[in-house]
Amino acid sequence: MRIAELSRQAGVPVPTIKYYLREGLLPAGELTSPNQARYDDRHVERLRLVRVLLDIGRLPIATIRHLLAALDDPDPDVHRVLGQALPSSVSGKDSVDPDSVRAARVRIDKLADERGWLVGEGAPARQAAAEVLAAFEQVGADVGVLLEQYADVAETIATHDLAFVGRASAAEGMLYAAVVGSILGDSLLAALRRMTQEHESAKKFGIRGDDC
Amino acid sequence: MRIAELSRQAGVPVPTIKYYLREGLLPAGELTSPNQARYDDRHVERLRLVRVLLDIGRLPIATIRHLLAALDDPDPDVHRVLGQALPSSVSGKDSVDPDSVRAARVRIDKLADERGWLVGEGAPARQAAAEVLAAFEQVGADVGVLLEQYADVAETIATHDLAFVGRASAAEGMLYAAVVGSILGDSLLAALRRMTQEHESAKKFGIRGDDC
Repeated sequence: MRIAELSRQAGVPVPTIKYYLREGLLPAGELTSPNQARYDDRHVERLRLVRVLLDIGRLPIATIRHLLAALDDPDPDVHRVLGQALPSSVSGKDSVDPDSVRAARVRIDKLADERGWLVGEGAPARQAAAEVLAAFEQVGADVGVLLEQYADVAETIATHDLAFVGRASAAEGMLYAAVVGSILGDSLLAALRRMTQEHESAKKFGIRGDDC
Repeated sequence: MRIAELSRQAGVPVPTIKYYLREGLLPAGELTSPNQARYDDRHVERLRLVRVLLDIGRLPIATIRHLLAALDDPDPDVHRVLGQALPSSVSGKDSVDPDSVRAARVRIDKLADERGWLVGEGAPARQAAAEVLAAFEQVGADVGVLLEQYADVAETIATHDLAFVGRASAAEGMLYAAVVGSILGDSLLAALRRMTQEHESAKKFGIRGDDC
């Protein structure tokens, strides 16, 4: 199909498709003339994935490029790629005091150690967790109990996530499921968490106005 | 204190403070002359909170303005305010087909109904959950089992979150804890989830290279 048809099928405007092509988020079509390329169903699928990762996952372009490269890699390093696709990027967090982050990192490493988590020393998630922990403390919140409870919950979620990945058919499908599940899973969990928070809050503090 | 001292104490550059003042994220200081204002410890605290909500929570300025207004409101509507502070904003999700979102919304409403969740019909979290669900389907993922499992997990998380809020001392502190816990909690959970995913993946698929 030509780019106009690709645009129609994927529901993405042509200038946006051209931008993704330039940014390396979409593989080039097969050239049929010097100015014209042909695209196929894989381009439609890839476009839908890119849109969702950008729009729902709110990932930076560079992170999506890495994720897609892993999907196309015959021997991808899934751990590393997914570890880098954290919702809040690790680099450049200047809102949190570096000393507090270092102290929080010791707590996160201790937590992972006590629970026997097999997580690389250099995994970006360790640092991301430490930054959030330090941010909690910086705004005066005592997060000790919550941290252990969240760690329990995270262990449960991860078993569900891995089962989700395991339900995908081929090896190729498993990596795809890991990417989609990791990124969209954060957003799904956050939305459901808001719903259940409202429920718990309504139970505890009573229902107000037209909230229910 | 003057703005230079406020900048030093909060670790935020003066031009950034002036920008926050213009955007209404920080209340004006007490004018001591036509060109000079005096700030106090509450400004330091507020600045730290704004930085963390922007940097870790990655919330839009307008959302933070609403959250802060609620914190300053003697009779705030916490449900409404927190519901609007979802990590991915509800409006303008053009990556997902509207018909799919409507179908997904029916599933989310059914889920909430079956579980007896007290959640307002107009709660933005319902729509956010529907959009993510539709996004999962749009990229070809079968998310039925995961949805129920995540709903179970969300119920557990919400009880922990409410307990966290309950541990705050005064009523003022409870709202503050709800804001901080909701926003930073998403990021903490996402980071811990990445760690436990890596752990589960390492257990299931073996450890690779220098990952551990």
